[in-house]
Amino acid sequence: MKLGVCYYPEHWPEADWAEDARMMRELGLSLVRIGEFAWSRIEPEPGRFDWAWLDRAVETLHAEGLGVILGTPTATPPKWLVDMYPDILAHDEHANPRRFGSRRHYCFSSQTYRREGARITEALARRYGQHPAIAMWQTDNEFGHHGSDESFSPDAHAAFRLWLERRYGTIAALNTAWGAVFWSQEYRSFAEVDLPGATVTEANPSHILDFRRFNSDQMVSFHAEQEAIIRRLSPDRPVTHNFIGDFIRLNHHDIGKHLDIATWDSYPIGLLSEGHFTPEEKSRWLHQGHPDFAAFNHDVYRGTAPEWAIMEQQPGPVNWARHNAAPAPGMVRLWTWEAFAHGARFVSYFRWRQLPFAQEQTHAGLLRWDRVPQPVTGEVRAVAAELAALGYLALQRADIALVLDYPSLWHHEIQPQGRRGATIDLCRTIYTALRKLGLDVDIVPATADYTGYKLVVLPSPSILPEGLGERLKVSGAVVLATALTGCRTEDVHLLPRPDLGPLPELLPMQMLRFESLAPHVTMKVRTEHAMYTASRWRETVETKAQVLARFDDGAPAWISHERAHYLATWPDEPLLHAALEILCAQAGIAVRHTGPDIRLRRAGGLQFAFNYGPNSVDLAPMGAPSDPSAYALGGPRLELGGVAAWKV
Amino acid sequence: MKLGVCYYPEHWPEADWAEDARMMRELGLSLVRIGEFAWSRIEPEPGRFDWAWLDRAVETLHAEGLGVILGTPTATPPKWLVDMYPDILAHDEHANPRRFGSRRHYCFSSQTYRREGARITEALARRYGQHPAIAMWQTDNEFGHHGSDESFSPDAHAAFRLWLERRYGTIAALNTAWGAVFWSQEYRSFAEVDLPGATVTEANPSHILDFRRFNSDQMVSFHAEQEAIIRRLSPDRPVTHNFIGDFIRLNHHDIGKHLDIATWDSYPIGLLSEGHFTPEEKSRWLHQGHPDFAAFNHDVYRGTAPEWAIMEQQPGPVNWARHNAAPAPGMVRLWTWEAFAHGARFVSYFRWRQLPFAQEQTHAGLLRWDRVPQPVTGEVRAVAAELAALGYLALQRADIALVLDYPSLWHHEIQPQGRRGATIDLCRTIYTALRKLGLDVDIVPATADYTGYKLVVLPSPSILPEGLGERLKVSGAVVLATALTGCRTEDVHLLPRPDLGPLPELLPMQMLRFESLAPHVTMKVRTEHAMYTASRWRETVETKAQVLARFDDGAPAWISHERAHYLATWPDEPLLHAALEILCAQAGIAVRHTGPDIRLRRAGGLQFAFNYGPNSVDLAPMGAPSDPSAYALGGPRLELGGVAAWKV
Amino acid sequence: MKLGVCYYPEHWPEADWAEDARMMRELGLSLVRIGEFAWSRIEPEPGRFDWAWLDRAVETLHAEGLGVILGTPTATPPKWLVDMYPDILAHDEHANPRRFGSRRHYCFSSQTYRREGARITEALARRYGQHPAIAMWQTDNEFGHHGSDESFSPDAHAAFRLWLERRYGTIAALNTAWGAVFWSQEYRSFAEVDLPGATVTEANPSHILDFRRFNSDQMVSFHAEQEAIIRRLSPDRPVTHNFIGDFIRLNHHDIGKHLDIATWDSYPIGLLSEGHFTPEEKSRWLHQGHPDFAAFNHDVYRGTAPEWAIMEQQPGPVNWARHNAAPAPGMVRLWTWEAFAHGARFVSYFRWRQLPFAQEQTHAGLLRWDRVPQPVTGEVRAVAAELAALGYLALQRADIALVLDYPSLWHHEIQPQGRRGATIDLCRTIYTALRKLGLDVDIVPATADYTGYKLVVLPSPSILPEGLGERLKVSGAVVLATALTGCRTEDVHLLPRPDLGPLPELLPMQMLRFESLAPHVTMKVRTEHAMYTASRWRETVETKAQVLARFDDGAPAWISHERAHYLATWPDEPLLHAALEILCAQAGIAVRHTGPDIRLRRAGGLQFAFNYGPNSVDLAPMGAPSDPSAYALGGPRLELGGVAAWKV
Repeated sequence: MKLGVCYYPEHWPEADWAEDARMMRELGLSLVRIGEFAWSRIEPEPGRFDWAWLDRAVETLHAEGLGVILGTPTATPPKWLVDMYPDILAHDEHANPRRFGSRRHYCFSSQTYRREGARITEALARRYGQHPAIAMWQTDNEFGHHGSDESFSPDAHAAFRLWLERRYGTIAALNTAWGAVFWSQEYRSFAEVDLPGATVTEANPSHILDFRRFNSDQMVSFHAEQEAIIRRLSPDRPVTHNFIGDFIRLNHHDIGKHLDIATWDSYPIGLLSEGHFTPEEKSRWLHQGHPDFAAFNHDVYRGTAPEWAIMEQQPGPVNWARHNAAPAPGMVRLWTWEAFAHGARFVSYFRWRQLPFAQEQTHAGLLRWDRVPQPVTGEVRAVAAELAALGYLALQRADIALVLDYPSLWHHEIQPQGRRGATIDLCRTIYTALRKLGLDVDIVPATADYTGYKLVVLPSPSILPEGLGERLKVSGAVVLATALTGCRTEDVHLLPRPDLGPLPELLPMQMLRFESLAPHVTMKVRTEHAMYTASRWRETVETKAQVLARFDDGAPAWISHERAHYLATWPDEPLLHAALEILCAQAGIAVRHTGPDIRLRRAGGLQFAFNYGPNSVDLAPMGAPSDPSAYALGGPRLELGGVAAWKV
Repeated sequence: MKLGVCYYPEHWPEADWAEDARMMRELGLSLVRIGEFAWSRIEPEPGRFDWAWLDRAVETLHAEGLGVILGTPTATPPKWLVDMYPDILAHDEHANPRRFGSRRHYCFSSQTYRREGARITEALARRYGQHPAIAMWQTDNEFGHHGSDESFSPDAHAAFRLWLERRYGTIAALNTAWGAVFWSQEYRSFAEVDLPGATVTEANPSHILDFRRFNSDQMVSFHAEQEAIIRRLSPDRPVTHNFIGDFIRLNHHDIGKHLDIATWDSYPIGLLSEGHFTPEEKSRWLHQGHPDFAAFNHDVYRGTAPEWAIMEQQPGPVNWARHNAAPAPGMVRLWTWEAFAHGARFVSYFRWRQLPFAQEQTHAGLLRWDRVPQPVTGEVRAVAAELAALGYLALQRADIALVLDYPSLWHHEIQPQGRRGATIDLCRTIYTALRKLGLDVDIVPATADYTGYKLVVLPSPSILPEGLGERLKVSGAVVLATALTGCRTEDVHLLPRPDLGPLPELLPMQMLRFESLAPHVTMKVRTEHAMYTASRWRETVETKAQVLARFDDGAPAWISHERAHYLATWPDEPLLHAALEILCAQAGIAVRHTGPDIRLRRAGGLQFAFNYGPNSVDLAPMGAPSDPSAYALGGPRLELGGVAAWKV
Repeated sequence: MKLGVCYYPEHWPEADWAEDARMMRELGLSLVRIGEFAWSRIEPEPGRFDWAWLDRAVETLHAEGLGVILGTPTATPPKWLVDMYPDILAHDEHANPRRFGSRRHYCFSSQTYRREGARITEALARRYGQHPAIAMWQTDNEFGHHGSDESFSPDAHAAFRLWLERRYGTIAALNTAWGAVFWSQEYRSFAEVDLPGATVTEANPSHILDFRRFNSDQMVSFHAEQEAIIRRLSPDRPVTHNFIGDFIRLNHHDIGKHLDIATWDSYPIGLLSEGHFTPEEKSRWLHQGHPDFAAFNHDVYRGTAPEWAIMEQQPGPVNWARHNAAPAPGMVRLWTWEAFAHGARFVSYFRWRQLPFAQEQTHAGLLRWDRVPQPVTGEVRAVAAELAALGYLALQRADIALVLDYPSLWHHEIQPQGRRGATIDLCRTIYTALRKLGLDVDIVPATADYTGYKLVVLPSPSILPEGLGERLKVSGAVVLATALTGCRTEDVHLLPRPDLGPLPELLPMQMLRFESLAPHVTMKVRTEHAMYTASRWRETVETKAQVLARFDDGAPAWISHERAHYLATWPDEPLLHAALEILCAQAGIAVRHTGPDIRLRRAGGLQFAFNYGPNSVDLAPMGAPSDPSAYALGGPRLELGGVAAWKV
């Protein structure tokens, strides 16, 4: 468990490097990511490599004992390369190229760029593959960011046709899978199939879902090509890729198979500003970030690869959100500890020094551009000392599994069933409800083995893999599914046996009708003793199971059969909270009510507590001991930004 | 007066057809629309026709006594045709083709597509023109939907130039008509004239209006080409086209001349979600649809052709609106009866079975995809029985004519005089005010003969045909016109004699000034005894007529001369209600106040009443008898979704 | 000080011209602008000029003693020219041409259009350069309107590369200036540099700022080419260009060097509808326009050239805003007098007669199209008489300078530091606060000599020219700067010595951190005695200066050192009002509180007062005398639209 930082030696006078490295070490950092945007300096002209500066940079960091995370620079092909091979560029749906001038301007399907990416990766891996300073490799950076997952280039078109041919074998199989007879969209050969763009009205949903799958696969294979080169030339160093938060266009479970460690960008305040949060949430947590945004993503990425870490941790105001507030004092330390409590192998801040030029000049660093330390460095120094004291924090499997399925998230985007929010928001709302019960959560793929979990939650995954119901049943876990769970086949067809329901092994039910409702509509959901609300979605189901809550017209809203539960709607948080508390009791899971701002997390035999709210909070009701000596960090009372950890 | 359904045999295993047909008949249906999207099955490869399956489908339906409405499949040209002739595709204003992958992806001006459309129509008409099962022909489907009325293709450009040459004869005439001297837009020949797209700022309004006229004419002539083929090869069968609701880009009065029967798509809930309704309206009628939306469109289409019907009646939640609520119990029956009370020849539900794949898979059918009947089938069965009991309902001409003029609607879109709402909304607001007075309304073209009408309302038609004032005068009707009526010539010029006003035969007045006002601005309008509000538009007029209401600054708001009235604004509903009640008294029309939710309609010697609201309503104040035996349907008290009909 | 009008003889029958001219003279007008859109009539075919009609038009106006302002017609190249040379057209960022069909459809960098523009200018200047009727020349019209400042054409690309080469000399210098090493954007030659459009994410800010500078320079040089021709062929007549309000894409200080007189379009109501005003402001001043909108622009344009005037004064409702209300009675007179009180040389109304055809047909004129005078002509006639009585109004330098810097405004657009409003709004908010203290303001460039000013306000100019701090210091003026003042170098880098602060000559301070905040966030700012609010921006500064107000966490919000003040935020109006009142006291400037609706302005030894509000206001508290004979206009009490002027 280490601290690190992102650094760009090519941005600074070489005379600064040694002092920068010294200050990093002195601050308690031990990892430095470099190189991922430096192609124009590594290969300033076609075929002419300039290794000298990079050699010196690596040596300078190495001399201070800093481990280097070296990035392949393929996120930013230089201008000369784009001019030599314009087919590198991604295209928008009108076939306009997306131009040079920022970053991520390449198409994942470009054969030329595949070759060129392999060439620069090989050159880099050959040069540094055995260098003792190299602690890790990062391929490219932030696959898919800025809509770069999608390209409508001729190469993308050709690759998609091949991908379809591999998937379906025959064009008849594709026509059947897509239901292409609808609107006379049948194809006579794969050569007839277009990319699903610029259509007059909506394109076929199976067509679009396959394009999403293809795009994700192209990102995975682009990574895998670089990974193979690195493993060949630098066989003993781990490989990572750095992802962005709340990004769903890439199937992280697929790419995770090619990673030793998954890393991501944690910008809690930037993403509070940009995300689907209410104005109240945006005000309450303006300087803290939403209490579950980072943690949710930690658990997402933790579930994708053997290890995980934060490659970019927000250290101050950023430049890219619509509005960019500063973190409250203490929050950078809190975020760092929240990450470690979720098992992060390292937390690397972005960036070392604020850069006085170009696009990100208003993105804060740990240091001002003239190397004056920002106040936040005090928090980093504190964490470094605390880390040294605490040592390694081993994780346990959680009692609860939340299922995250990428094709289902894509399907909900393609057939949104009411334009309001996205299903990833439902996942996080459920995650929040669980966290406010003081619980740890594993986020797992739909193909997981659920043995050992006491509670499994299915947040409306629409496309269930084969055998899921059976696996859930044999696990013995209590199961909660929300509306639209399992409503489609792999090919985006409605279920061939709707009379059996989506989870026949668990629940006797069938769906008669689905409605989506506008934001101004709230539905009442009544249990025997209380009244809750739900919104957005309503299914009319028929069931022989027990009905625990009903809609106003008497139709079942919450049904239950043995250990399985189903909410035939998009539940608001109070309903979720109530339902999950009952399910936890059924599953034998003890809960602790945290209130709106406190979050708990166990790791390494410690119970961590974090205060994201403005008020001072007494932790005793959450089981915190009164004896100060029981605490590894903090004590029984937490202020804004406070972190406590006591032995359990 | 029949019931029907839309059915796509090509979507289902052939083994299902006979049972589907049997169930249709058993449910009381007697018409089935098929074929309108089936080109890729009828002609799976260039020139190779596969009639066998369609022969068997037609025979299967015929065997159950079902009449077939057969559609020409030109709304969905197959991929092979588009690939052979890419000039078929419509183009957006930047000259990008609108691609294959959904539907309506053709350009009405494509010479190639005209030829291909005629070829497939001829093949179909030759095959089935004399088949006893064929009850009716439908050309294509939903002309102009998804913005397909407009294309900026080379063929459209060439056709538009020819159209202009036919309209104007000389380029000098065009330059004069368009006022092209403004901003040096004069042309030296028709070859210089572009389509009005992608201009730096707004294009010339006469240029745009001519493009709208041209686009409508192209749709009409596209239809007429198919119609001519059908009449030649199937001379004794009626021809229809199926339109969409609230669609104004096609001049339905023009195309109506080529129809035996006009049909349209009635989706009251989908269009409540998408339409210009207030949040209160969207809540109150969430599960019913706006009480006047369907009726208004019924009367629009009734006014365009000898007969009219509903080709697609919403039977449950649909897939295409932003939010898709379910109809309340009873509403499908209510909608069906409202249509018959307006003279529909048939009501055909869309669709028979929900389709488990492709774009419309969440569009409800009468049956679930596994053929389980939805609850709504009970309502359909009820209507079938009631229909059999009541028999044919003859219509009378209404006392009231509401004028609908397409070029005027286009003109208001082109020069919106304040960006808020559209003039079609004003038409419906007036229609609502009349309906809430318990009145039946005919919707007629501006070129109509008004003899026999007691009240004629002009909802701001800006371009009046020659002789309208004279025709109104000789009719003896009371006339109400709202602001901007008759403010432009055919060429979109302001009137050459503004001192005479727009209706010199009826009203001595002239307009000095026109203002448009933002949504937050409300104007007071005072009559002698009451105060009302108006919004959006305000004219400052000078008149020797009587002034019945004034704006705050004393300027006339409601003027009256003999039997003619003019409101120099966009009246809010209470002002309209008050004014129309006074005008009805002047015209000798008896009114009945229905309240917000009840609507009345006379047909076949019966007075129908419909309850669109949530509350139980006593119909006695609306003249309903207390004797239950006086009722052909229902009784003197109506619940939500209730229908009553008593003899008058 | 004259009155004028815009007139288009080519729009009217020649038979009307003499009577139109007579009526103009009779109304008190003495200037008539013509010709600026008449290319298709002047040169109806390539190379064939038709001067006869224009000769007669000029003579007809001349015969009535009217001076002609003659426009070069380059804002509207005719269709034949565009067809001959399609490279004339501007291109959007996707390289689509912006088509013929409205106006301003040319690219400022088109070499062809430069040649053609010079050719038509030369022809016109040769014909009329010595004609006694010609009072003034106008080049083109409204440079940059409708986004026409920007073009992504091949010619623009080539010209931009040359412009960069001239600016930077070497590509290495450009790479350094742009910080192009960031994201591997380094160039090997100027030939590699693209225009900054259609990038995947944001382009380099220095790249964009240079493109803005280039676009402005292209407009200036396009003007200068016409100016040189006119000065050669019509050496004794003044040259103007007619600008639009609140337009910042053109550096008016640069083009001002090529003007004898700057003129602009004053549409107070149209721009209230379109501008960044609150709903309350849009309601309160619906029929008056914002009290500072026109005055602010008067002072902006006054600061750019030796003289200034209004070329287009709104005389009634216009056509182009989203909503178009009419001016309240008296407002056209008030606007005219406000302009003269700010030193306008003339006020020219747009347009003489409302035009019954084409795009602007709902734009009111002084006359209806049938030549019936609108009520507003009474106000024009009154002003003409009053003007004759008052004679020339000499202006004095104001005590207060407000700094306006175009590159800084561009920079704030490029790096908006929080998406809400634009910095031009902050300029006007400060201007309003000063005006509500009864003060006159000069708006000056950042390069001005401040000697003689008592108070200089810097409304967040981010890029300060060299020596500004020194010039401010030697002027002895009290100085107020708001957040982000001087935060960037000329190349859009953060300051190399942030420890010195942006104005080291005046204020010892340094900025540690910058935050931007969403609209729902308000910060408290406390002085010793009062509490204010601020929003949008917050800097955390460190200073040895005096702290006059602090944020909630104690950080300095208002700092002061000797005569310099700094607000580390975007101040709301009450804070500005309070701060400016204190600064005025320090500067020895007497203030008068005007309330929300009254505005004052001194000119020609008179104190003018204007009432923009709905209520009658007593001017005595603002120093107005009680003796009626002291008034040149009005008296001590002002109604809506009232103007008073008393001797001071």
